[in-house]
Amino acid sequence: MADESLLEKAQAGQIAAQFKEIAKLEQQKPEHIMEWVQNGKITIMTRGGKPSLGIGAGLTTKINANIGTSSDNIHPEAEVAKAQVAEKYGADTISDLSMGGKIDRIREEIIKVTRTPLTTVPIYQVVAERGSFKNVDVEDILSAIKKQLGHGISSVVLHAGFSRNMLEKLRKVDRIMGMVSKGGALTAAWMIEHQAQNPLKDNFGEVLEYLYEYDAVLSLGNTMRSGCIHDMKDTAQLEEIKLNAKLAKLANKRGVQVIIEGMGGHVQAQEIVPFVKHYKDATDDRPLFVAGPLPIDVAVGYDHIAASVGGAMASGAGADYLCYITPAEHLGLPNIEQVREGIMAFKIAAYIGDTIKYGPNNRDRVLAKHRQQQDWGAQFDLALDGERAREIHPVSEKICTMCGRYCALRIMENYLKGNK
Amino acid sequence: MADESLLEKAQAGQIAAQFKEIAKLEQQKPEHIMEWVQNGKITIMTRGGKPSLGIGAGLTTKINANIGTSSDNIHPEAEVAKAQVAEKYGADTISDLSMGGKIDRIREEIIKVTRTPLTTVPIYQVVAERGSFKNVDVEDILSAIKKQLGHGISSVVLHAGFSRNMLEKLRKVDRIMGMVSKGGALTAAWMIEHQAQNPLKDNFGEVLEYLYEYDAVLSLGNTMRSGCIHDMKDTAQLEEIKLNAKLAKLANKRGVQVIIEGMGGHVQAQEIVPFVKHYKDATDDRPLFVAGPLPIDVAVGYDHIAASVGGAMASGAGADYLCYITPAEHLGLPNIEQVREGIMAFKIAAYIGDTIKYGPNNRDRVLAKHRQQQDWGAQFDLALDGERAREIHPVSEKICTMCGRYCALRIMENYLKGNK
Repeated sequence: MADESLLEKAQAGQIAAQFKEIAKLEQQKPEHIMEWVQNGKITIMTRGGKPSLGIGAGLTTKINANIGTSSDNIHPEAEVAKAQVAEKYGADTISDLSMGGKIDRIREEIIKVTRTPLTTVPIYQVVAERGSFKNVDVEDILSAIKKQLGHGISSVVLHAGFSRNMLEKLRKVDRIMGMVSKGGALTAAWMIEHQAQNPLKDNFGEVLEYLYEYDAVLSLGNTMRSGCIHDMKDTAQLEEIKLNAKLAKLANKRGVQVIIEGMGGHVQAQEIVPFVKHYKDATDDRPLFVAGPLPIDVAVGYDHIAASVGGAMASGAGADYLCYITPAEHLGLPNIEQVREGIMAFKIAAYIGDTIKYGPNNRDRVLAKHRQQQDWGAQFDLALDGERAREIHPVSEKICTMCGRYCALRIMENYLKGNK
Repeated sequence: MADESLLEKAQAGQIAAQFKEIAKLEQQKPEHIMEWVQNGKITIMTRGGKPSLGIGAGLTTKINANIGTSSDNIHPEAEVAKAQVAEKYGADTISDLSMGGKIDRIREEIIKVTRTPLTTVPIYQVVAERGSFKNVDVEDILSAIKKQLGHGISSVVLHAGFSRNMLEKLRKVDRIMGMVSKGGALTAAWMIEHQAQNPLKDNFGEVLEYLYEYDAVLSLGNTMRSGCIHDMKDTAQLEEIKLNAKLAKLANKRGVQVIIEGMGGHVQAQEIVPFVKHYKDATDDRPLFVAGPLPIDVAVGYDHIAASVGGAMASGAGADYLCYITPAEHLGLPNIEQVREGIMAFKIAAYIGDTIKYGPNNRDRVLAKHRQQQDWGAQFDLALDGERAREIHPVSEKICTMCGRYCALRIMENYLKGNK
């Protein structure tokens, strides 16, 4: 528990140790990190044993991996193993979305074996454990948030940015997929069942006190996101952005840092850049978290690739934080190999986005030099996943494994240098 | 052998059967196809038994798959099988780049078992069979082109767009990778060895007669392309564009259709769109063929994903035809599964590019409707690779395999319809 939150330190003009850590990692000045935290443009997630993670203005794009059991697919060890694989291949954060099995135990185990900031969606556990919306009251929801924060998670996703009125409007908009946010749907279903307002919005002040107490990050959920290209950017989605922007201001005022979840799901390619800009403008440049987005719906089984295209575009336009999509998206829970594929597709998207945001990366230049020299080992050490490169590359000698003896590089090296 | 080439028919204002075929497939008017062929903005490739393939203005983006043996990796049956897999998963054209084994036999076998337009790079076979540049004379190069055209291939790649003078300049530009085009390097090495000018450029008139005779397409090679991000868009590359543009005009004047190979290899993300526009302007909007491009160098083992991002951007900006990149790029010859992965990554890139060129695709909308209804079969039938979707999706019942009983769609469908 913190005496003063990181945000309050920034607001007081203090340069906290975490700001220095991030400044060093990201080659920025600590004063800039402090300033960006102060005005809510950078949000910091912390976990013991690992340097603090900065998300937002001036920083590299971060990626999140979703893991967790479902009601019908309960293999806790597999989910813990996925968390470890996600960490190994470079996820900056992990979200445990378990809804099956002993959820507290799964979370505790993940916390034990990883050092990556961990996010949860507390309403998942509440509903999964009660088995129905009827038996859940506001106190249950609030105490689940508190309990999970107490376990040491770094951030919680709360779907606070919509009202009963907005649900009524959702009935009327021309959507094919309706609502595809699970946390949003659980919250909405509770509201309808109990004929109540949004419990998180109604009790927002109290929720902020919990978050403040643990200096945890509030991730403002994206209930109204589009579940297919056709549904994008309708009034339901636009109204939620406004409400989340308001809630973000309130949270920052109370010393609680926020992430804006947005845009995710399915957005046509040429709409991605303007939509990111809309989000950033509407939220005073607060850190924007985007799932994918998928620019097309037909890439079933390869959604990680389509979403990598969308994610690179979104990141290049200013999205700060991408949620990975795996090849199993829309089909089932990913297996270990699909988690790795999803991570790598999004490491690539984030990296490309950063070259758009910040210009060429010297790492590419250095790798190219090793490639020119056919120094496979040095090349693979610099690759995003050197292990994969080594799995595919059959030999370690200095020969071109694509071209054999007719390697353009070798032929022209000899001729251009006049050796021949 | 044609009496009159397709281009001449267009130039004479005739609407050839091939123009009608393409118009029907691509929902265009035959008159527009004729007009675009006339002014070189569409190029048509033909193979018996399959509808003609149009590449260029107003048409969907096409993709090519490279296959073929290398000097050190000679498994002809495997390469033939790759050609079949490429065709099965939707390659619009195949390029046989074999440099090892009995090259004529491999090509004949591929021609026998596929119906997809086939491209070759004749200089590969000449050099591979002679084993050195010294023993190759101009007649060998010219007769290889003639022989391969006689076998029924649809297009040949000729690296005619550079001179000795440009090779001298290449020695001086600040490049890490030098020349990475294999066909270009073989042509250049021959020129240096024989202290001669570019044999294809010098004998361009004769080459055009061969192409005219078989009404085959001339693909103008991209010798000076960049082999890493650092090397992009230098004078070597820019001069080749100009020379290829001139050669393209000459070819069109002789009734021979052309493809401009360009930009391929490695181009930083934010340079892709302006560079495509530069190419299209410099070549009077002739069909542009781009390999990748790769926006970063560090995605070793996942280059198909990074190149899918680059390819989507290039296609959206106006590239007409993309050469796939597989996960084995820079590492070795792809295996069958990697060919499939490469094809799918580029089906996705082309599809996304087309939504940027032409707006949303109704196929996404229809698939979303099936997804909403959890009609897995109908959804998979519309997917780019339904077979892959079926491999991943474990069950066929109407349940959400990602969320189990807590499916947002089902929960909200009940509530929003007032069933609950």
